[in-house]
Parts: sequence; structure tokens; C-alpha cells
Amino acid sequence: MSATEWFSRSVALMRPAAVAETVVAAPTGERPLRARLDATLRRGEEALSPRELRRLLEDLQGIIDPRVSEVEGGRRAKLMEAWYAGATPAQRRDLWLLMSEQFTADPEKVKKAQAQYAAAVGTPDEAAAEVIYRRATVSPRRRVLQRFSADADGIRFLVDLRAELQPHLKGDRRLRALDVEMEYMFSTWFDVGFLELRRISWDSPASLIEKLIKYEAVHDIRSWADVKNRLDSDRRCYGFFHPRLPDEPLIFVEVALTDEIAGSIPPLLDETAAPSDLGKATTAIFYSISNTQDGLRGVSFGDSLIKRVVEELKAEFPKLKTFATLSPIPGFRAWLQKTAPAEVLAGLEDPLALDPRSPKRAELLAWAARYLGREQQDGKPLDPVARFHLGNGARVERLNWGGDPSAKGLKQSFGLMVNYLYDPKRLDKHRAMLAQGQIPISGAIEDLYR
Amino acid sequence: MSATEWFSRSVALMRPAAVAETVVAAPTGERPLRARLDATLRRGEEALSPRELRRLLEDLQGIIDPRVSEVEGGRRAKLMEAWYAGATPAQRRDLWLLMSEQFTADPEKVKKAQAQYAAAVGTPDEAAAEVIYRRATVSPRRRVLQRFSADADGIRFLVDLRAELQPHLKGDRRLRALDVEMEYMFSTWFDVGFLELRRISWDSPASLIEKLIKYEAVHDIRSWADVKNRLDSDRRCYGFFHPRLPDEPLIFVEVALTDEIAGSIPPLLDETAAPSDLGKATTAIFYSISNTQDGLRGVSFGDSLIKRVVEELKAEFPKLKTFATLSPIPGFRAWLQKTAPAEVLAGLEDPLALDPRSPKRAELLAWAARYLGREQQDGKPLDPVARFHLGNGARVERLNWGGDPSAKGLKQSFGLMVNYLYDPKRLDKHRAMLAQGQIPISGAIEDLYR
Amino acid sequence: MSATEWFSRSVALMRPAAVAETVVAAPTGERPLRARLDATLRRGEEALSPRELRRLLEDLQGIIDPRVSEVEGGRRAKLMEAWYAGATPAQRRDLWLLMSEQFTADPEKVKKAQAQYAAAVGTPDEAAAEVIYRRATVSPRRRVLQRFSADADGIRFLVDLRAELQPHLKGDRRLRALDVEMEYMFSTWFDVGFLELRRISWDSPASLIEKLIKYEAVHDIRSWADVKNRLDSDRRCYGFFHPRLPDEPLIFVEVALTDEIAGSIPPLLDETAAPSDLGKATTAIFYSISNTQDGLRGVSFGDSLIKRVVEELKAEFPKLKTFATLSPIPGFRAWLQKTAPAEVLAGLEDPLALDPRSPKRAELLAWAARYLGREQQDGKPLDPVARFHLGNGARVERLNWGGDPSAKGLKQSFGLMVNYLYDPKRLDKHRAMLAQGQIPISGAIEDLYR
Amino acid sequence: MSATEWFSRSVALMRPAAVAETVVAAPTGERPLRARLDATLRRGEEALSPRELRRLLEDLQGIIDPRVSEVEGGRRAKLMEAWYAGATPAQRRDLWLLMSEQFTADPEKVKKAQAQYAAAVGTPDEAAAEVIYRRATVSPRRRVLQRFSADADGIRFLVDLRAELQPHLKGDRRLRALDVEMEYMFSTWFDVGFLELRRISWDSPASLIEKLIKYEAVHDIRSWADVKNRLDSDRRCYGFFHPRLPDEPLIFVEVALTDEIAGSIPPLLDETAAPSDLGKATTAIFYSISNTQDGLRGVSFGDSLIKRVVEELKAEFPKLKTFATLSPIPGFRAWLQKTAPAEVLAGLEDPLALDPRSPKRAELLAWAARYLGREQQDGKPLDPVARFHLGNGARVERLNWGGDPSAKGLKQSFGLMVNYLYDPKRLDKHRAMLAQGQIPISGAIEDLYR
Repeated sequence: MSATEWFSRSVALMRPAAVAETVVAAPTGERPLRARLDATLRRGEEALSPRELRRLLEDLQGIIDPRVSEVEGGRRAKLMEAWYAGATPAQRRDLWLLMSEQFTADPEKVKKAQAQYAAAVGTPDEAAAEVIYRRATVSPRRRVLQRFSADADGIRFLVDLRAELQPHLKGDRRLRALDVEMEYMFSTWFDVGFLELRRISWDSPASLIEKLIKYEAVHDIRSWADVKNRLDSDRRCYGFFHPRLPDEPLIFVEVALTDEIAGSIPPLLDETAAPSDLGKATTAIFYSISNTQDGLRGVSFGDSLIKRVVEELKAEFPKLKTFATLSPIPGFRAWLQKTAPAEVLAGLEDPLALDPRSPKRAELLAWAARYLGREQQDGKPLDPVARFHLGNGARVERLNWGGDPSAKGLKQSFGLMVNYLYDPKRLDKHRAMLAQGQIPISGAIEDLYR
Repeated sequence: MSATEWFSRSVALMRPAAVAETVVAAPTGERPLRARLDATLRRGEEALSPRELRRLLEDLQGIIDPRVSEVEGGRRAKLMEAWYAGATPAQRRDLWLLMSEQFTADPEKVKKAQAQYAAAVGTPDEAAAEVIYRRATVSPRRRVLQRFSADADGIRFLVDLRAELQPHLKGDRRLRALDVEMEYMFSTWFDVGFLELRRISWDSPASLIEKLIKYEAVHDIRSWADVKNRLDSDRRCYGFFHPRLPDEPLIFVEVALTDEIAGSIPPLLDETAAPSDLGKATTAIFYSISNTQDGLRGVSFGDSLIKRVVEELKAEFPKLKTFATLSPIPGFRAWLQKTAPAEVLAGLEDPLALDPRSPKRAELLAWAARYLGREQQDGKPLDPVARFHLGNGARVERLNWGGDPSAKGLKQSFGLMVNYLYDPKRLDKHRAMLAQGQIPISGAIEDLYR
Repeated sequence: MSATEWFSRSVALMRPAAVAETVVAAPTGERPLRARLDATLRRGEEALSPRELRRLLEDLQGIIDPRVSEVEGGRRAKLMEAWYAGATPAQRRDLWLLMSEQFTADPEKVKKAQAQYAAAVGTPDEAAAEVIYRRATVSPRRRVLQRFSADADGIRFLVDLRAELQPHLKGDRRLRALDVEMEYMFSTWFDVGFLELRRISWDSPASLIEKLIKYEAVHDIRSWADVKNRLDSDRRCYGFFHPRLPDEPLIFVEVALTDEIAGSIPPLLDETAAPSDLGKATTAIFYSISNTQDGLRGVSFGDSLIKRVVEELKAEFPKLKTFATLSPIPGFRAWLQKTAPAEVLAGLEDPLALDPRSPKRAELLAWAARYLGREQQDGKPLDPVARFHLGNGARVERLNWGGDPSAKGLKQSFGLMVNYLYDPKRLDKHRAMLAQGQIPISGAIEDLYR
Repeated sequence: MSATEWFSRSVALMRPAAVAETVVAAPTGERPLRARLDATLRRGEEALSPRELRRLLEDLQGIIDPRVSEVEGGRRAKLMEAWYAGATPAQRRDLWLLMSEQFTADPEKVKKAQAQYAAAVGTPDEAAAEVIYRRATVSPRRRVLQRFSADADGIRFLVDLRAELQPHLKGDRRLRALDVEMEYMFSTWFDVGFLELRRISWDSPASLIEKLIKYEAVHDIRSWADVKNRLDSDRRCYGFFHPRLPDEPLIFVEVALTDEIAGSIPPLLDETAAPSDLGKATTAIFYSISNTQDGLRGVSFGDSLIKRVVEELKAEFPKLKTFATLSPIPGFRAWLQKTAPAEVLAGLEDPLALDPRSPKRAELLAWAARYLGREQQDGKPLDPVARFHLGNGARVERLNWGGDPSAKGLKQSFGLMVNYLYDPKRLDKHRAMLAQGQIPISGAIEDLYR
């Protein structure tokens, strides 16, 4: 059986005979079916034949057919998920295109509503006209997504589909409508208010801890002994969970409780080190924050996570005074190589990074202070990690020579690491400074590049 | 201290001095603040002075000020909730008007985006243009609601506010924009996919069962003995709960398990009757469905509830074959009095309803069959309960003489009750019939009005 | 079918044919079956015929037959529970007698072990001999109880059986062995270490709160409104629960949080009173403690309950300084009538109790102070409630005129109530005083009878 | 500070000054303190000086001093636990001796009660006399254990103490009384009825799964990948847990679901093998059962565990028909070397075990069939694993050549493994056969040694 035959059968399975005709006869769409589909086709680029594409489109339309119940619509969505699971990458791409291009709002309705709205502005009917107008702009594509979202498996399906879609967005802007629609729906569904902050500990399910190992994005977890150390008595790990993806940490942060701001990552990852004395802990070091779902790109959790974790930690350890990160500087080396004069770059080999008496030390620190404390792009800090923490209201606190002597650390930033300080009382002040173009930095950083 | 003074102080408390000026200096809005406010005012109708209204508007705008963090925005929303709790009804109405009229989308942006979209239709940019266009139509009002929704108390606040708003909508259509915006947001937040179906039993919290007593809308619960009987071994009660309002049943249904379709309500509510034998149960009777939140008007749960409860019951009792309601006919008497000739109406006194040998019996049943089986309005069944069940795919199954001999039952329908039958295999077929203007009825009903 | 026939069939059902013979052929017992049974019989007093009694005994023995597995033994115990559920009171009594008299330890074995132990005293074998000796004294009756106890239903069965047994103990001392064995086993199974302290609130299951209504022994709960008031924000209610009877509070205590030691019960039971301000609470008043299971008589929970509740309350309300009861004086009136001269008793009618200016007031208070502060029996306080609280280490703190104006209060103690003070730091000191025959009292009480 | 000084201080800490004197003045014991202590001493063998021993004994007695409350007694037990944590092995042994020898029942009381009981036999007072008699034999040692057991930490302390005690029992029989008392108390506390059967899966806490790795006694778990394989979709793992040691599996069993009786262990431990199809599973293979607590030696869980797991599996997989073990034969090789003639033993090198065509195969299988099917000691099967499963009612089903080619397998049994079959319907029949001295075996085993 060829892929096409298989496909035809799968699709046939999806559509109970009793409903098939009405779907064809009375499409939900506002434009004639055939015309729109032609607009999507690019001769020879599709994996499915025009006939197969048409059936797939009908099946998609069947999911939101207003004459079937939610339950039946949900059942059809499940069949589509099953088809997708067995489809080839190219067939999947055909589905994305259909979802992106064939389910736009009806432009005629939109136009009419817009005209009514324009006429109502300034009259008592303005608000009602706005409502009608906005409703007219809601695309059927959103209803398709809602039908899939009716259960946890469907949410999982959509998040994974969008993750799969990401690498294709640059190459084919026709897919953007689907991507943006999904981002919009995910922003609603994964609203921070729905998220549950949960502590992850060595008493958490092994299947969950296995996900930490898989998702950790900053300092790779090498083994179960490594992750156990990161969940030891002097550590905390928190994640955000969503009721619809209950076993999946959407983002998680690893925290070390110490008696001073940590400047170096290897001691924190040393599995043989004794846990520090919690009774003396004054400082919480956020040394790793990882987003786990590519499919949720553009849905922001990090800001809330850090702030809620700060609240949790203050409640558990009233003696904690200082909340700071120990962060990589991923863009520093590349920026320096583009920016600095040749004499600065000369002799910058990796081994140097570990030597605290390096003659290059002062010079490099000054450049790093400038990179973090001044460089901006589109009104935002240039370094992506800086952008995140400064956007949350932190400030650049301290540079650490040789803080990350790993190959990755040397490659990104000559082993330099940075602490961002989260002072709960000054977060809004710092955000306001940043909004006016001024990056908040400590006196120590300021001294470095003077 | 006068109410106004108190108000001024409250509002002052809401706005930390440090931020106050910037709020005034850089409003979020797209039109000049003063102009819009004037548009809202109706000389003398407001409870607050123009100056107070302006401050209240500024406070609302401060909640979504893009320069403050989510956390700060949430804190300001909490202050607004506190103000509201202490405000008079008239002051609250002023707030509603501000929220309804002052936070519309920027018409200039909308116009521009609409033009770009129109130009892009048919080109590869169409989808992206649609996205931009839709974003432009998102009103700041929605952001205000989102800030309130950041925690469970805020959701509770919004749902209660909308419940309070309902009676004023007819009298002042300026409030409609706020109402529709809330309905829209609630539809998203309270998406059926988020709802958790929970069984409510005599082992449920007393505080929850107390809510059943309060919310029961069909057959009043008179006492704890009454509600205990409704949660007995031959009964089931299920409710939908939302993670953001975890202790609040949004809707609940009461079910009796019997060996035949019940035709009369008093035996079901008889606290002294022995529970029936579950081993012999073939039939599930849905004898009461109550929505609990006026603030969620327009957000539909009932269809899903019944279907999910049918699934639960089939799993627990594989012998169940029949799923039917025992329902009131709330609009029958009023309709009959408008419709029927005088001779039909003559002598229709209440006591008659209970007499099975009444000479009026056949005539009344025929009129009721016609009312339920034929009468429609705007293409939908005329009776509101019929509209709900038939819309779900049920059919009109049986009329029951003297089914509800209570004063309410006599007043609504001369004591008549009706069973709607939910046949899981024919729900979609019935919906399709209804869509074509034909109300699905049993042969018995058909016989009645022939 | 007569009761006897029915019984025979039931018993036959209990014993699978395959095992029946061996049970008869090889009884577990150490004495010949027939001889012992005759010892138990009292001509004409039994409800069962000798033949039926013999079969019942065989069935009991079958439960602990060493040749059957625990699972089979448990199954037989279940059959016996089913028989018991259908048996008449007189038949049940026959079973009690069999369990009490037919399952003693083997006196021969005991004698032999005792001799070995006597010989070993003072040698290195003493300890081992003690072990053998003690094992020999374990009666088969205990193994019967253990088999029943294998699941929660069996525990429930045994506890209820013992409750049923209680009223018969005085009349027939043959039953005492069973009662004492059960008390002993219950003391082990219901060891305080196994008990879970749980707060009971208005959010607890209605079925649990219904049990409070049923079990409350001190101040009757009249309605759901009454119990709701006792679970209000300024109240706490805690119970001990056991993992094997998870939905059953074994004992519970009701606490009011106040700003002074309460002297009167009606304000505490006033459903319309506003809850007091928790922020100002300095005092916890234990105003009702109820044991719920007659079958657990002799197993003491109250001491631990109060102490653990004090810990809970101190943790939740660090400002609490005073922990006291508001207690009835159940034996005062009866004691006074036996003890006091006629002139004291003259004119003591009930209405007086409520009048704070009663001329009898000082005299009655003095007598009550003497009753509580001096009267002892067998070295323990005479009043049963006093005995409990003083035994826990409390002291007699204050007498309250008119504290309980209910009929019961007047009847027991002319409406007088007393506070016992639990001073966590002095509990052991008070216990030591009591052990030396001195009842700990406050200065105020001392003043009263001087 | 010497150990002795440190000890003295620790002990001093344990005894609040206020109580110290009374403890000395009024010991709980029935014999003079000094006399008994001398009986325990063996010149020079103790780690503590006589004076220190005396203080330690007083502290133990203080724990059960009848004049202090349970709470105070529990506090003193905690202090003793703290002392123990810091004590040397030799000091701990001194404590064991004191607990074993100094807390026996009062022989005078026992003697008197025994005489009363002897006199009452045959009279109506027999049962009551038995109760008094039994109470007299309860040793104070048991009360000491009960005080420790008041919380989970104390239970943990006692279980660990007994585990530590085990290796010393053979060398010093004075310790036996303590050991037997603990076994007795543990049998009560860890009664199977209290145990909770829980499934352990890859979703269980990592800290729990780590314990599986640590405790697995049959086939070592080598890594997290190994344990994950054992918790895969075609496996089940169940453990018994106790409410007082909630995170500790007392015993656990690993089960593979297959379509035939497994004969070889390596495929079951192959991490790379695909999980088998659950839909086709007809057979549950119990391939590893591990007790985890040496301190609970003599408290039997295994029988119940297997039977409850069989119930669980039947409920989850109604198609399961066969329940069998795949078990080692730990005593076979040693027995063969003692028993078989030289010519049988000649040439039995390990590599042979894996060769299915070995000329020794038939001979070895016959000897193994004889070993398992006939050899008994004290009326029980000789092989310890056989003793366990046959005692539960299983039968010897099949011998497997080369079933365990590991070094351990070769060393124990030339790589042979055996299946014991659990036929739920024949368990009691098999137990009865075994009680009569006949080991139940399959026809295939019978054929082997014929």
C-alpha cells in the first residue's frame, strides 16, 4: 500500500459515512472550497495529491462543522491526530499549510463590520459595534485549535506540532498565520494564572526528574548523581506546571542556598561536596533556568517564575537577604571578536581563562562590563540572558573571572560569568530605568569600565 | 468622612506616590485622556465627581501601565478590588462605565491595519496581515481583565462583578462592551477543556453541599435531609469545577438511577423512600440541572456536562441503557394563555392538575405536545428548557400528567412534566434534524397532537 | 425457614466441603472439643442447640486452623461476620460465650513453661525462658481476633461487637475474658502512635460532620446551623483518626478561641453571634470532648488529643497563652445531696441557678470547690470529668455560676461549670501532686472553701 | 573530653534535674536496682563503668516512670535516641544488655497470678484469672519499646537497632530476650492488616526507586537504566508500606508480564529489549522478591504480598491465567557437593552451565529435581527459597537449564533456575500436602528424578 493509498484510507476512517456528504455539500467556509485550495497549492511542492489535499481540508472543516456536537468534533480531532502520527514530514507540512491558509476570517464580514464600527465611533453604539467587529475577525482556525485542545492529549499534540513547525517558519512565510494563531491561543491557555508552582525534589517522580536531565539547557546534567546533587538539602528546584500538561515542567529553575553570592559554577555542580548549612544561608543563587517546550515559544513564564520562587524561598528561609543569578554571557565572545581592536583579541586562548593572574584579566573584564552594561539593540540589552533578567528588573551585579571553565563557557565568554541581582524592592525602578535606555548596574561594574 | 472623601483616600492609597506622576504624564491610552472621559460623562448621572472619575480612570490605566511589572500590575488590581468592595452601587456603576467606554482599541491603528490587510488579500502576505490586523483590534480592556485574573480571588471578583452588572445591561447599552468582553474572556478561561468533572456525594465537603442547597434552581432543596436524600446510594450528582475556582461548582446535575423512566418528581424527592436497588438500574434520570454563576452567562457547560456524566454512568453501571431527563415545561402555561381559544382555557384551575381523570387531560396533553414538538422562535424551540436539551441532541420523549404538583409546577405548566431522551447514538442525527427545522419527537408525542 | 435452619445453612456455607472434615478431625484446640463445650453450656440458656453450638465452635476454630492460609482464614472470618449480621441477639451472645470460654491458652503448656522459667531464673537462660513462657500464655482467642482484624471491615466488626457486649458484662462474668482480650488487642491496634490528628472543619465531608452531630456527648448538637457555628472561623475542632477506620473520629474536641477564659456555654453555642476576632485571641477554650466508640472503652486517647491540639493551636496562633476547658461537673448535685446537711439543700430549686444574686450562691460555690478540690475515691478525684483532666495534669481553675443553664446543667450541677487549666509547663508537676494525693487548684478555688 | 565524660554529660542532659531524684528514689522496677544490675555485669566486658551503667539504667527506667506523662516519657525516649546516635558500638551493646536483662516481668507477681489461675481452672473465674495472669507476664521492657514507638522516628530507631543487634545474637544469648520482645512487638505493629500495597513505577519518587536499587537482593540493579527497564510498561513492581514508615518499602516484588513461563533471567534484565505486548500477556512472572529491613526479621510479609499482587494483577489484566516465579536455587550446589558421589561432581565446571548440550545436563537436572522435590529439614523444604514459596502454597513447576548464567547463579546452582507455580485455587491443597510431608511438584519435575 502506497503512502497515498494509506492516507486515503486513514482519512476515510476519519469520516463516518453518515456525515461525509453533508460535509462536502455544506462546507463551513465562507469562500468556495475549490478556489481557496488552489490559492494554497504550489505546483509540485505538496506531498499529497490535490484530491487528497481536498479530502484533508474537508476533514479539517468537518472538525468545526457547526452541525456536529462538541463531542463528535472532538472525536474527529482525535482521528486527525492519529493521521498526523502516521504522516510523513512532507504530509504534515501540507496539513500546516491548510491550517494556516484555509481558515482565515471571512473578509466580507470583516469589511462590513469595520464599516459599521467606523460609523458608530463617537455614538452610544460604538462599544457594541466594536464587539461585533472583533467577533468578525475571529478566524475559524482558532475554532480548529480549540477542538484539538479539548483534552490533555490534544494540547500535547498542538504544542508538539508547533515545536515541529518552528524550523520551517523562516523558509515559508505562509506558515506564519498558523504559528501566530497558536502563539496567541497558547498565551491564553498557558496564562501564568493557570500555572502551578511546584517544588521538584529527590522525592519527585523519577519520570519527572528524568525530564530535568533531558531539558536542562544551561549546564548539562550528566548523570543521576549529578541531578541528585542539584536536588540536595541545600538546593531548591521549582517548576511551573499546567493543569492540562500535568507531568510536564514548562520551565524550571535551579537554586543553590549559600552564604554569599557564588562566582563559580564547578563547586555548585560538585557531587561530592557536602551540602552547606541551611541555617547560615543568606543568599539564593539562581544558577540555571530552562524552558522546556519549543512549542511554547513566545509564551513568557520566566519573570513570574523567578518572582514566585523568591516568595517561596523567603517564606521557607526568612534569613535570606540576597537573590542573585549566576549566569552565562552567551554573546560576549562573538561580540568582542566583532568589536574589539586586534590587540585586544591577540593571545586570547582558552587556558588563560582559568588563570586569575592573567595579564588580560583587567582588559577583558572591562570589555565584558561594557558589553553587559551598555550594549543595546532595539532598545534592549544585546546579550540574550541579560535581556531576560534586566527585563525582569534585575541589575548587573558582578563579573566572575573563570566562573565557567567548561568548553562551552570558554567558547561563549572566555569562562566569564555574571551575577544579576534581584532586589525585590527595586525591580520596578530598574525596569523604569531600562525603559529610559539606561541599563542598571552595580558600582563594581561601573568601576570596571571606567 | 463623606463617601467622596473616603473614596479619594482609598484611591490615593491605591497609587504609590512614585508612580503617580508618570501615570498622569504618559497614559496608556491612544486618545487624550480628558476628551474620552467627557464622552463617558452624562451630566449628573455619575456618583463620582469628574475629578474623582479622572483619578479612578488613571488608577485603571495604572493597572496596565506597560512600565510596571506583572507583579506590580497585579498589586494595583488588588487595590482596585479593595476599593470596589467598599464602593456604593452607584460608584461601582461608574467604574463599569469607565471600563466599558475608556478602553477600546485604538481606531487609528485598527484602520491602518485594516487597510494593510485589505491590500494583502490574495497575496502571500495575507496571513501575516491578518495577524497584525487582529492584534490591533485587541482592546486594552482585555488587558485590564487579564491583570485582575492573575489569581483566584481576581477571577472570583470578575465573575461576581459581571453577575452584578447583568440587571443593568438593558437600561444602559453603554455597559454592553464590558459585558461582551467579559463573556469573551470567560469563554476562554472557562473553556470546557479546563473543567474537571467531579462527583458530589455525601462525603463531599459540607461547605460544598451547602452550595448545592443555595444554587439548586429547579426543585428547591429544603433541608440537609433533602440534600442527603439526593446524594443517596441510588443517586448521583456531578458538577463541573474550574482550577481557578476550585470550591465552586459551575454547574451541577442531579441523577436518579431507576428501573424505568420516571414520570413524577415527588417520589424522587421523598426523603423517607428506601433507595432503589442499584443492581436493577437500567435508567438514569437527570432531574435537575443548575447553573450557579450568573456572572458566567453565555458560557455554556450543560451540553458537555450531560455527555460526560453519561460516560461516567456507563462506566460505573454497564447495565444502564436509557438516559433521560425529567424536566419542567416553564413556558407552557404562559404560551397556552396567549395561544389557545377561550374554551380551552376555561376551567383550568390548579387542583385539576393532580386528577388523572380530569376531562381536560387529553386536550391539555395535546396542546403541550404541540408546544414542545412544534413551536419555534428564531429557528429554535420556544420553551427554554426544550431549547437546551434539543440543542444537545435529545428528543421529546414523553409527557407526564401531574409530574410536578408543586405550586411552581402548577403555575408553569399545570403540573405537566416532560422527559427528554438522550440516545447517545442519535444525538448528532437529532441535532441535524433540528438544524433543518424539525423538532425530534417520539411516536407517543406525535400521537398526542394528532 | 426457621432461624435455626437458616443458621445451619449459613454455617454450612461458611465451611467449604473440602476442609470440613479435617476441621472436625483435627481441632486446633488443646483440650477435647466436647468437654470444653459442655463446660460452657448452661442448660436452656443458649439460643442455639448443642449441635448448632458445636458447628459454630468448629467454624470459629476453622478460622485459625493452622493448615489454612491467612487468606483462607480471612475468608472464613468474613463468613462469620455475615452470619453475625443476620443472627439474633441471643445467638450473638452464644458466639460471645464460645469466643470467651473456648479459646484459652493450653494450661498444660503454660504450666510446663512456667516450671522451666522458674528453673531458669538467675541463670543465663532466664530471658529465653521468659520468652517461651510468655508465648505459651498467648490464647488462641487472640488469633481469632487477629484474623478478623485483617481488613477495615473486620476491625469495624470487632469494635461494634465489643460495644454490643458492654451492657452484658455485669450480668455474666463469663464474658469478661473476651472483653479483656479485646481491650488488650484494641490498645495495641489503636496505639496513640498510629492515630492521625485531623482538623474537622466546615470543609470536611458532610458524612463526617453528621457523625459529630451523632456522637457529641457533652452539649447536644441540635442542627446543621449549630454544628456550622461550632466550626466557624473562631473555632477549631480536631479528632483522632485511625488508618483502619479512616472515616471515623475516635474522639474529638471542640475549641473556641477567645480573649479570656469563658465562663458560660450559651454564648459559645449562639449561632447568631459574630465570630470573634482571631487576631486578638489569647485563650483556647476546650468546651466539649467526646469519645465516639463504646467498643473502645478502656483505650485512652483524650490525654494525647488535648496535648497534640495544644501544639497545633500554638503553631497556628503564636499569641495563645491560656489553654483551659469549660467543663460540666456531672457528679456535683448527686454528691451534694448525699453529703450536705439538710439546711444546705433546702430551697435549692433550679431557677435559682441563673440568678447571680442568689443568697445560696456563696454556699454552693464553696461546696463545689470542696467537691472538686478535695473529694477523692481510690486515690483519684471523685468527679469523672475532674478525674480525666486532673489525671492529664490540669488544675481546677475557676467555678462559673450559671455557666450551663440547660436542663441537663441544672440537673447535674445547679448550672455550675468549671474551668480546668492546662499549663503546658506544669502538667507533670500537677500529675506528681495528684500522685501524692493532693488535687492541684488555683488560689481562687482555695479561697472559695476557706 | 573522653567518651566516658561525654557520655556522662549526655546522660545528664537526658534527665531534667527536677525529676532526677525521684527516679533514683522510686524506681519502677520490682527488684532492687543494684542487685539486678550486678547480675548483668561481666567483669571487664562492659564499655561503660558501673556508675555509668547505673545512670543509663535509671534513664531507661525514667522513660516508663508511671509518674510522668506520655509526652514527658516520649521526650525522654528521644533523648535516649540522641545518646544512642552518638554512642560507640560497645556502648550500644551495653544498652542492649540493660534492655534485655533489666526489664523482665516481676517473677513474684507472675508466680502469684499463676497460682490463682491454677486454682480457678474449671470454675467461672477461670477467664478472669487468665487475664490477670497474662497481664502479670507483660514485661516493663515492652513499655520501654512502646514509648520509643510513639512516633515514626522512634519506630525507625527500633527497627535499625534490631538490625544492628542481629549479628550479636549468636554470640551472646543474653540479648535474646530483647530480640524476641522486639520481634513480638514488630509482629503486632507491622501486622499485615496495617500494610498498604502500593505499585512502584517510574512515576514513583526517585528517592523510593533509589531504595529499590539499594535493597534488591536477588538480581542486583546495576543502574538507573536497569531499574527503569524493571518498571517498564510490561512490568509491575509492588511493595508493602506501613503508615509509620511511609517512605520505606518493607518488601517488594518485581513482576514481568509475558505470554509464557519465563525460563531465563537475562532477557528479563535486558534494558534494550522492547516491552512485550500487554494485550497478549497470559502469565505473570515473579522474578525477584526482596525483604528490605533486617530489623524486621521474623515478621512475615511475603505470603500476603504475593497473594495481594495476584489479586491486583488479575483485576488489571483479566486475561492473566498463570502466576509463577522464576527463582534461584541458592542451596543446590552446596547440597550436591555434600551429597552426590564423586563421579557426579567430576567435571562440573561453570562454563558447562550455559551449554544446552552438556552431557551432564540430564544428571544435574535429576539431582536438582530431587533436591527441590524431596529434601526436607525439620519437616520443611531444605532450600530456603523453596521453603518460602512452598510454604505459601506454590508447587515446584519447572527446572530451567542455564536460567541464570551470572557468576552468582553458577556458584549457587550451576546456573539452574526454577519456576514455582502459584495456582490460586490449589494453594490450600498444596499447603495441606506439605503439612503431611509431601512436597507438591509438577509431573515434569516428577519425571526428572524418575
